[in-house]
Amino acid sequence: MSVNNWAHRKANKTIKLVDATGNPIAGKDVALTQTNHKFLFGCGIFEAIEVANKSVPEDRLAFLEEQLDKFLDVFNSATLPFYWTLFEPEKGKPRTNELKTAAQWLKERNVTVKGHPLCWHTLTAPWLLDMSNEEILKAQFDRIERDVSDFKGVIDTWDVINEVVIMPIFDKYDNGITRISKDLSRVGIIKEMFEKTREFNPNATLLLNDFNTSINYEILIDGCLNAGVEIDAIGIQSHQHQGYWGREKLEQVLDRFSSFGLPIHFTENTLTSGHLMPADIVDLNDYQITEWPSTPEYEERQAKEIEEMYSILFEHPLVEAITTWSFSDDGAWLGAPAGFLRKDNSPKPAYEVVKRLIKEDWNTNVICQTDDNGFVSFEGFLGEYDLVCGDKKVNFKLEKGVDTEQIII
Amino acid sequence: MSVNNWAHRKANKTIKLVDATGNPIAGKDVALTQTNHKFLFGCGIFEAIEVANKSVPEDRLAFLEEQLDKFLDVFNSATLPFYWTLFEPEKGKPRTNELKTAAQWLKERNVTVKGHPLCWHTLTAPWLLDMSNEEILKAQFDRIERDVSDFKGVIDTWDVINEVVIMPIFDKYDNGITRISKDLSRVGIIKEMFEKTREFNPNATLLLNDFNTSINYEILIDGCLNAGVEIDAIGIQSHQHQGYWGREKLEQVLDRFSSFGLPIHFTENTLTSGHLMPADIVDLNDYQITEWPSTPEYEERQAKEIEEMYSILFEHPLVEAITTWSFSDDGAWLGAPAGFLRKDNSPKPAYEVVKRLIKEDWNTNVICQTDDNGFVSFEGFLGEYDLVCGDKKVNFKLEKGVDTEQIII
Repeated sequence: MSVNNWAHRKANKTIKLVDATGNPIAGKDVALTQTNHKFLFGCGIFEAIEVANKSVPEDRLAFLEEQLDKFLDVFNSATLPFYWTLFEPEKGKPRTNELKTAAQWLKERNVTVKGHPLCWHTLTAPWLLDMSNEEILKAQFDRIERDVSDFKGVIDTWDVINEVVIMPIFDKYDNGITRISKDLSRVGIIKEMFEKTREFNPNATLLLNDFNTSINYEILIDGCLNAGVEIDAIGIQSHQHQGYWGREKLEQVLDRFSSFGLPIHFTENTLTSGHLMPADIVDLNDYQITEWPSTPEYEERQAKEIEEMYSILFEHPLVEAITTWSFSDDGAWLGAPAGFLRKDNSPKPAYEVVKRLIKEDWNTNVICQTDDNGFVSFEGFLGEYDLVCGDKKVNFKLEKGVDTEQIII
Repeated sequence: MSVNNWAHRKANKTIKLVDATGNPIAGKDVALTQTNHKFLFGCGIFEAIEVANKSVPEDRLAFLEEQLDKFLDVFNSATLPFYWTLFEPEKGKPRTNELKTAAQWLKERNVTVKGHPLCWHTLTAPWLLDMSNEEILKAQFDRIERDVSDFKGVIDTWDVINEVVIMPIFDKYDNGITRISKDLSRVGIIKEMFEKTREFNPNATLLLNDFNTSINYEILIDGCLNAGVEIDAIGIQSHQHQGYWGREKLEQVLDRFSSFGLPIHFTENTLTSGHLMPADIVDLNDYQITEWPSTPEYEERQAKEIEEMYSILFEHPLVEAITTWSFSDDGAWLGAPAGFLRKDNSPKPAYEVVKRLIKEDWNTNVICQTDDNGFVSFEGFLGEYDLVCGDKKVNFKLEKGVDTEQIII
């Protein structure tokens, strides 16, 4: 891996450091410390709801606070759950306040929050089943209008619609969203949901998200783009309970979905530190076991796979986000040992790996000296920085295309 | 099978028969004989080129003329080949005259002709490989402009673009069309080709055609329709060299592709009277054998399958055309015994079956008597009719929504 593979992640910048009267600060040591990444390193961190709302007993709260501290030490992006049946179990009584408290709590800690998802056939509101298709569509629109408006400014990234490839042919159980997706067609329902979301938060980052990485999803995206749907990023799920894709498949997927020229978000990544789920399971939800232990041997495997996968994604110019679905084994989806932490909050080797990558290998931390005219030049990873000079500290952004900046200290 | 299943294929009509001075022809016998179907019963009948142009030795010509006679006895629709490499082997020297002679010859015999295809990666012009992608796209557009214009009025039905699901990932050999399909994306190339074809024959019937009947093709069509592509009919290939789909699969395919509400054409049907191609062959072209005999036993099977399949399709309200790809075993694709005729021009049982269906079971032939006011009412299959009364003969059309007509004899 060479530094050249990160050219798209970096920028050069020349800062002119001046004092309050505009005189250059010459010949001084300046410490430039990256405090945040432009790249989104995220996790599903639904526990933020309980921590922010203090809605669990004290010992559990302390445990979750410790978990969240470890999350905040490394990550800058979080996915919060908006599954309709959980968010609004009783029609007209959404859990807006709780979710807003959580999103706000994360935002204050410099974490970008994504809401997941606005429209999905799974975990949708069961009370839709009593409605006509026209009423379901209206309820779905109303839901988008209400939630996207309520969270605007706190949540400006949404998985608008989830798993549309399977949506109209999903036959495990009847549900309101599958019903309307049959009426509207796949591209049709995507178009409607994106337009409605855009209407109530025009500058939001809107994702289409799917676990299907086959040609089906490619053709679906192609259709959407040709139909004028403004997709801001392609969401790709990568739950690898049945084994790591490996470099070849990962690069092939990246290659295929890069053809659209759109940003790619790995939205739901899973690499476990346990035994593999049998390959013959088609719907991962069908695998129900009582115990799925994390073992030292498999923790080493997980760490290696995390390092390779994150490195490949970070090197790819179109990837802008990686979210590991379960930050901790505690409460992880399917009971899988899918987290960076074990059930007792102790960090696995994968946590140390991802922390090193994000906080050291891909992080800029330099000390330079201003020249006679107060200039200091450096190259660093894109993101937010602290500049410390003597007892003064200011912050600035390192962005592409903003090569020079005058900073007053 | 009940007559009710054909309601969409039939109409009622009341004819008022009058003489030249406008007096009703009362109490006379009237023979109403269907001479053509609205439904398109077709075959790939590339031999029409040689017959119409008399471009083969005399004995071969006589043989082919006999073949064509048998075709014309039953069918009212024909597909002619416009494979670019065969149609224009040398750039700038298209076989326009030959093809036009053939199309005209068929048209004069009351046969609707379809051109197949305007854009396809297989059998495309090899000389495209010397061009830049921009030049290839221009050459493809020029080809459409030239051919669609040249044949307008003679060929007003086109397979605009063929097998797009596989087109950009087709990797058997490099070709110009796969190259540009990668640039344009699937929906993009379909959109461009349909718009160009429509531009030079606005009232033509334009088809998208594919052998892929999976969810891929559904999503592709969905994308096209949402992107504003005006598809007049969905073309479905059904080369069943590896065995008859059977009622269940056929009805499932019909059900899935009916959801768009568009007419469906079965564009390339094959049911052989020989042994089945092994199921493990993926690209049918890979099956090369020296001899693929038609046997009495398999001819019975073919006849049964043809009867069931044609009956299911004729009963389906959205199906408007069935084309059997090889009319005769002589020169059939892959050397398969795929025809209605054997290699010696003798008709197989399947020929007799399809002739009975088209010319008897689904054909109207009645004698009625006019009433005192010259009225005669009847119900019949949609299409063209001869009306014979005494020594007079006139023709008329039986269409949906045209319930009464005055006819002067």
